[in-house]
Amino acid sequence: MTISDYKRWYEKHRDEVLRDFFTFLSFPSISTDPAFEKESRNTAKWLSDYLTQIGLQSRVIDTTGLPVIFATELSAGPDRPTVLIYQHYDVQPVDPLELWRSDPFKPVIRDGEVYARGAQDNKGQCFYSVTALRAFLELCKEKRVNIKILIEGEEESGSRGTLAFLKSKKVDLKADHLFVIDFGLPKKNVPAITLGMRGLVSLSVTFQSSRIDLHSGVHGGIAFNPNRALAETLGKLWDEKGKVRVPHFYDTVSVPSKEERAKLSMQFNQAEYANAFGVTAFCMEEGFSPLEANWFRPSLEVNGLVGGYTGAGVKTVIPAKAEAKLSCRLVAGQDPKEIAESIVAFLKQEAPKGVQVEAQIFEGAAAFSTSSTTRAVQMTQQALEEVFGKPCQFQMCGATVPIVPALVEASSAEAVLFGMGLDDDDIHAPNEHFGLDRFEQGFLTITGILTAANHS
Amino acid sequence: MTISDYKRWYEKHRDEVLRDFFTFLSFPSISTDPAFEKESRNTAKWLSDYLTQIGLQSRVIDTTGLPVIFATELSAGPDRPTVLIYQHYDVQPVDPLELWRSDPFKPVIRDGEVYARGAQDNKGQCFYSVTALRAFLELCKEKRVNIKILIEGEEESGSRGTLAFLKSKKVDLKADHLFVIDFGLPKKNVPAITLGMRGLVSLSVTFQSSRIDLHSGVHGGIAFNPNRALAETLGKLWDEKGKVRVPHFYDTVSVPSKEERAKLSMQFNQAEYANAFGVTAFCMEEGFSPLEANWFRPSLEVNGLVGGYTGAGVKTVIPAKAEAKLSCRLVAGQDPKEIAESIVAFLKQEAPKGVQVEAQIFEGAAAFSTSSTTRAVQMTQQALEEVFGKPCQFQMCGATVPIVPALVEASSAEAVLFGMGLDDDDIHAPNEHFGLDRFEQGFLTITGILTAANHS
Repeated sequence: MTISDYKRWYEKHRDEVLRDFFTFLSFPSISTDPAFEKESRNTAKWLSDYLTQIGLQSRVIDTTGLPVIFATELSAGPDRPTVLIYQHYDVQPVDPLELWRSDPFKPVIRDGEVYARGAQDNKGQCFYSVTALRAFLELCKEKRVNIKILIEGEEESGSRGTLAFLKSKKVDLKADHLFVIDFGLPKKNVPAITLGMRGLVSLSVTFQSSRIDLHSGVHGGIAFNPNRALAETLGKLWDEKGKVRVPHFYDTVSVPSKEERAKLSMQFNQAEYANAFGVTAFCMEEGFSPLEANWFRPSLEVNGLVGGYTGAGVKTVIPAKAEAKLSCRLVAGQDPKEIAESIVAFLKQEAPKGVQVEAQIFEGAAAFSTSSTTRAVQMTQQALEEVFGKPCQFQMCGATVPIVPALVEASSAEAVLFGMGLDDDDIHAPNEHFGLDRFEQGFLTITGILTAANHS
Repeated sequence: MTISDYKRWYEKHRDEVLRDFFTFLSFPSISTDPAFEKESRNTAKWLSDYLTQIGLQSRVIDTTGLPVIFATELSAGPDRPTVLIYQHYDVQPVDPLELWRSDPFKPVIRDGEVYARGAQDNKGQCFYSVTALRAFLELCKEKRVNIKILIEGEEESGSRGTLAFLKSKKVDLKADHLFVIDFGLPKKNVPAITLGMRGLVSLSVTFQSSRIDLHSGVHGGIAFNPNRALAETLGKLWDEKGKVRVPHFYDTVSVPSKEERAKLSMQFNQAEYANAFGVTAFCMEEGFSPLEANWFRPSLEVNGLVGGYTGAGVKTVIPAKAEAKLSCRLVAGQDPKEIAESIVAFLKQEAPKGVQVEAQIFEGAAAFSTSSTTRAVQMTQQALEEVFGKPCQFQMCGATVPIVPALVEASSAEAVLFGMGLDDDDIHAPNEHFGLDRFEQGFLTITGILTAANHS
């Protein structure tokens, strides 16, 4: 089978594929909020049934968190290569809901883009992969490649249950090639493979300085306001050059060599970027370009800040406590837990005297990187170049797929990271969207990879 | 009539008075949130009808904000003195609602204390005053004092409509003695008159650095996080000695003389205070005791802080914007608007480059102070000493009743500020409460003042 055969198949089945994709998108499988657990389980069941229908042996497997789907087609036998595809069916929360132009769980097409939470990240990328498996199983006359697909439900919330599941070795994930399809293109119609990504660790800190909320007139000037304490202390986290001031934060961070940088396409148009996202303020550490800062340097963000009165109008209160949610993107060498602990220690040390600081550290994930010369990378490069008709580029990714290092260990496969995302898909934000053209390009790339693996 | 007559009257009517008080407390007349406007209007109507029933000529008068109630009993005629009482029927919001032990609008008595939003501030103080008017009108055989009472509905939200109403001179508020009964006792069973209070100005500021929320992996290290910008900038508002760093903030602030301080009872037990409110961190400016800081020094508070994800779990977002609600307590000489503008200018100047700072300044109120030798103060002192059987103390108040300076102007009366509040009544906080003993003490004090005015 050639790319033309798959193009014809897609043309013929397009309406039906999109109908099923929209059904998949309509499940609010938000994994970060426990209130949506039942919806996540419904999503997993629907998707597993779908994989069974298209010819795989599929089942939903419980974990200590949200369930995974594991499906296989192993008729090629143990002497033939095995491809493992990883995806996730969960999505980010949708707030602020009022900024969505349409219901995040009622997908609509506007100007060739599907708008819905998960349209790209990662239900879109998941569903073109599943569709590629379906087409491959329908069209391939002599199957000489084994297929495994693992679809988890906690990628957006740290993959805790999935990680425990991987360690438990409940299923055989051994494979030759691992494809993690949760990444993006540097630009529309420019194919690329991602050779590394940053790790992540999240934490929340609470500053408390009284038992109850206090009247700002009766107590103002006497009781230390925890909002002030939090602002003052968080404000000390960065120095004037944009470096994180937490001791040991950079101890294991090394600047990549010129050779390492040379492999990578590092085009970045700051004006275009600013325009695309309406970004008016930048925070690159002194001495680093935007892409260097995003790929090679750890970052520290205040993802959430809340304390006191946040409703309409004003309320002259000194709140009992204030909270910040923080996270770090990590680079190779940084241990998630140690970094989080250093931050907590710093905040406790720098907080005003008497303010009670409590912290909770969430499960983290280390950074990951791979070589550009593996068979998996070669097959992917070839497939991408055929679909896009252009040379494939190599890039890094500032974001995190926490499961990747564990997947590599569980599968003993060499991983390749790619995908059809674009920076302006508004993933994790209101009005997330994904182009139908990229859905088809992703579909064709995976059928190309499966065809190559079938022939190798 | 003597204090004994009023004690007997109260004993006889106690159940009925409390029943009506509880009805008054059950109206959610939250003036800071426009959603409660209808409830405020219902409260005003109920209270005005009540004043009519007890023998005053009362009406609800619309303002550009929430309505005022104005009631009079002027049968003594223009040659006799006129007493003007000021109160407010509105209350603070109730959040965080989950910390209330009982419904804030379903009053209950526990251990002799009434628990409800407004139980003290100021429905409790309002209702013992109204009850005192009722008893006085019932018992006094020869009325030789004119009575006016003005009850507003916006005290907790800046009194904007009431201030415009006062300026409009729609009703004749001229009086000899003005009693503003929204204040407190330094300690249980220790009577006191308040000779001054701080002013107030509130503002909200928004820091924005992108058009939309951004993924912290894709954008972290590049786009400046407005939560960080807000924390860093707010953190610059105070110096290491606890002084506000905003230029011109202290330009018109003077330290009171030894003589001025000598008039005042300045007992403050910091350990008791810390224990009462669970306060673990203090913020007095270097060189000032807690009471000095609260009475003589302006303060700057972050009343609310919100940005990014604040729900359950974590979300790795760089928000588009972050907001802080700020307020200052002001001392004599500080102009509310000028102070707020200085703060906004400072924040705009200190915000990281490119971050868009927008501010909204709310209506403010100047500080107020009065002499301890007026007839109004003398009558109040005498009544308090009779009720409590102890010498009356003089104090200041760190809080604000924004309407006082305007009331003084509208009435041409000399004002006296007092009340039965205690610092641990948890006003503006969950589980606000007010003692039934203090309700009766307040009632007796006002009947004492009315009796004195009747004889003068």
